[in-house]
Amino acid sequence: MSADLAYLSISELAAGYRRGTLSPVEVTRAALERIEREEKYLNAYILVTGDRALEQARSAEARIRRGDASPLCGVPYSLKDIFDVAGLPMTCASNVLRGHLSATTAFVARRLADAGAVLLGKNNMLEFAYGETHPDFGNTPNPWSAERSAAGSSTGSAVSVCAGQAYFSIGTDTGGSIRLPASYCGLAGVKPTYGRVSRSGVVALCWSCDFVGPLARSAADAALVLGAIAGHDPSDPTSSRRPVPDYAAALGRPVRGLRVGVVRREFEEHLDADVRDAATQALDVLRDLGMEVVEVSPPPFEHAVLALLTILLVEASSIHRTWMAERPEGYSAAVLERLRQGALIPGVDYLHAQRARREFRDGIARVFQEVDLLVTPTSPSVAHRFADEVPGRDLTPYVRRTGPFNLTGYPAISIPCGMSGGLPLGLQLVARYFAEDVMFAAADAYQRATDWHRRRPPAVS
Amino acid sequence: MSADLAYLSISELAAGYRRGTLSPVEVTRAALERIEREEKYLNAYILVTGDRALEQARSAEARIRRGDASPLCGVPYSLKDIFDVAGLPMTCASNVLRGHLSATTAFVARRLADAGAVLLGKNNMLEFAYGETHPDFGNTPNPWSAERSAAGSSTGSAVSVCAGQAYFSIGTDTGGSIRLPASYCGLAGVKPTYGRVSRSGVVALCWSCDFVGPLARSAADAALVLGAIAGHDPSDPTSSRRPVPDYAAALGRPVRGLRVGVVRREFEEHLDADVRDAATQALDVLRDLGMEVVEVSPPPFEHAVLALLTILLVEASSIHRTWMAERPEGYSAAVLERLRQGALIPGVDYLHAQRARREFRDGIARVFQEVDLLVTPTSPSVAHRFADEVPGRDLTPYVRRTGPFNLTGYPAISIPCGMSGGLPLGLQLVARYFAEDVMFAAADAYQRATDWHRRRPPAVS
Repeated sequence: MSADLAYLSISELAAGYRRGTLSPVEVTRAALERIEREEKYLNAYILVTGDRALEQARSAEARIRRGDASPLCGVPYSLKDIFDVAGLPMTCASNVLRGHLSATTAFVARRLADAGAVLLGKNNMLEFAYGETHPDFGNTPNPWSAERSAAGSSTGSAVSVCAGQAYFSIGTDTGGSIRLPASYCGLAGVKPTYGRVSRSGVVALCWSCDFVGPLARSAADAALVLGAIAGHDPSDPTSSRRPVPDYAAALGRPVRGLRVGVVRREFEEHLDADVRDAATQALDVLRDLGMEVVEVSPPPFEHAVLALLTILLVEASSIHRTWMAERPEGYSAAVLERLRQGALIPGVDYLHAQRARREFRDGIARVFQEVDLLVTPTSPSVAHRFADEVPGRDLTPYVRRTGPFNLTGYPAISIPCGMSGGLPLGLQLVARYFAEDVMFAAADAYQRATDWHRRRPPAVS
Repeated sequence: MSADLAYLSISELAAGYRRGTLSPVEVTRAALERIEREEKYLNAYILVTGDRALEQARSAEARIRRGDASPLCGVPYSLKDIFDVAGLPMTCASNVLRGHLSATTAFVARRLADAGAVLLGKNNMLEFAYGETHPDFGNTPNPWSAERSAAGSSTGSAVSVCAGQAYFSIGTDTGGSIRLPASYCGLAGVKPTYGRVSRSGVVALCWSCDFVGPLARSAADAALVLGAIAGHDPSDPTSSRRPVPDYAAALGRPVRGLRVGVVRREFEEHLDADVRDAATQALDVLRDLGMEVVEVSPPPFEHAVLALLTILLVEASSIHRTWMAERPEGYSAAVLERLRQGALIPGVDYLHAQRARREFRDGIARVFQEVDLLVTPTSPSVAHRFADEVPGRDLTPYVRRTGPFNLTGYPAISIPCGMSGGLPLGLQLVARYFAEDVMFAAADAYQRATDWHRRRPPAVS
């Protein structure tokens, strides 16, 4: 598979399919070969579907010949190994689930199958999406620098897309687990509005803060994927019935006059100078595009992060209650320790965090009366070295700009906005509830004006 | 005040007012005199409003002369001292709030003032509605037997209505605190559907299980009061926008064909033989009225009670967090101990209880697909002796038939259904969500066919 083929956008692939210059089967075969070649370095997959993927590709090819116009038909993608796909194992990168075969298929995977997308395999991740790597599943290095982290927990999802092994991936995000890997790997990563994408068939970490969303090479690609997976699912009681806007129609839409809110502190404190400079320059691009950048003063983000971490610790320990009792040996020591810690947190602290959450959400709602978007850097630094990762570390600075929007449920996207020392940097755009179209319009306009998202990591093998 | 006057029904009072044979001012004065005479025995009031009540009575009298047809106009009532009334102290029967003057008036008290009802005073209660008497506020003995409890926490509310000191009262109910005093005192006590009556201006004990409702001498009187206080309040986010049925119109309505569900275990276990026999005879009355009594099998009530007590312990300790830290000496030792105990319960146990709650609620919902009403005894015994009350006792058997409907939010009424050893016994009728009209129709039909609710306690003084 040539790198050029591997890095085509979704609409370029679809156009090639329609014209007959590209074949889903050949594209899928090339992707599988690339995975096979690189997997020993990248460790991005727990399972590669191989013949199953080729069969789906043949079926997609037939659909395209019959005139199927779904933009995802025949597009190979990867799926974090936290989603059920009937007949396939699901591990959540933990030995707790070793031997588990899914009996049903997650809503999003069914939607993608309906759209004709081709599932290449299931991605490595942090164990149960809970912040730590299980030693038996191992690290997934950053394609930009093998000694560095690709963040998590949707690590393999980000790495597979970044390395040209998949055209998009589906991850989950409870504190930044889609947006932080997107930032570290130079991708577009979307955490949609609470209720926008069904969570049925996903192993929960924290009911009230878990989100399903795409990782892709551009905001435009991410918009096409979100359009395919968004919408009501009666089997998820938190799923919204609001109609889904046409996100593809938002691409290229005028953005002049959009009001963009900036929290000064989030550009000044708790981040590296290179991140600050790149994000500040991104604001200039938004101004050049006709957006109005204004300063806003929401409640302090650290309050939200503390509330999020308390809620996450308690809900995760509640969700894992039975497995913790029955299969403690299946967890890594670090995750088991965190689960046991969460089981000791008093209920009054949990309720206190829920009250802090309501106050913070009200504060963000007030900000969104003044602006259409909030913009922040995504992560406080470029990808860190594995050697610098301290087990049991304080996660607060790491998720301080992403976590507040898990807590409040606002939609957010991270897109690349610069490079430092050969590593990508991310910018986060946050929109009003269910205004993913506005977020995509702004992110796509930024990407039409810049080319950070076109940078490719050095060849792996 | 003659006993006959003191025990008139609300509609008898209203008819007397309309005809001019009774005067709100004279009725209020007589009630205040009765309170003054009996208070040293009954201790049912923390505050008596005196001149303020007479002024309201004069104003009601003027309204009636102008033709005001509100059924509560000029009717004297009492209010548990957990409700704000602007300008009056509110203690919740605790020294924590000593010296507190309310700046605003609770929604229900405003509704009653609008209806022309006359506030006689604020009732003694268990401290913060949390199961124990503060020694500085003292016990409120049962008018049927001074050595026995009138239950709680709306103790003074029940006693004032039972003793002929007030024509109705407003209490709160988190596990049975309206229905159990009603059962012990031979009254009608209503816990409405969650969201039916606003809780603004009420000191919370447990957000998700607190209810405001009336105590009255009959289901018919209670229906008139609920009609006045039910309805949407924008200042209570849990308040429902559903229209309020005309409860008065439900009185005397045919009940033939109503399906009444009975849980055999609740008539056989965890209750005294006299309670069982009276409740069983009440079922015969319902059958004679044309209702169909069928056996149903909801999930075990004790599961619901355990979940309720966990949720209550945690939410109460969360609500009292600041006061516990700042004014611990204001609490009785028993309540402070319980609050401190609640502060230690892990959040995972709280969430586990919330999950048990959902399962139990689903089980009750299935039962209500088959029946219109559920019927149980209210309390497991007649009023117990103060001497038998053990501090820190296990509340489980005491609230096992009332608590499940705090947990699930279904409306319920307790009405007297017999006497044993000179003490009243209570029957609980539970209806579908927002079907208080069905509950009133059945309870009123029962009371038209029986006269348990006409029994009066021996004269106090």
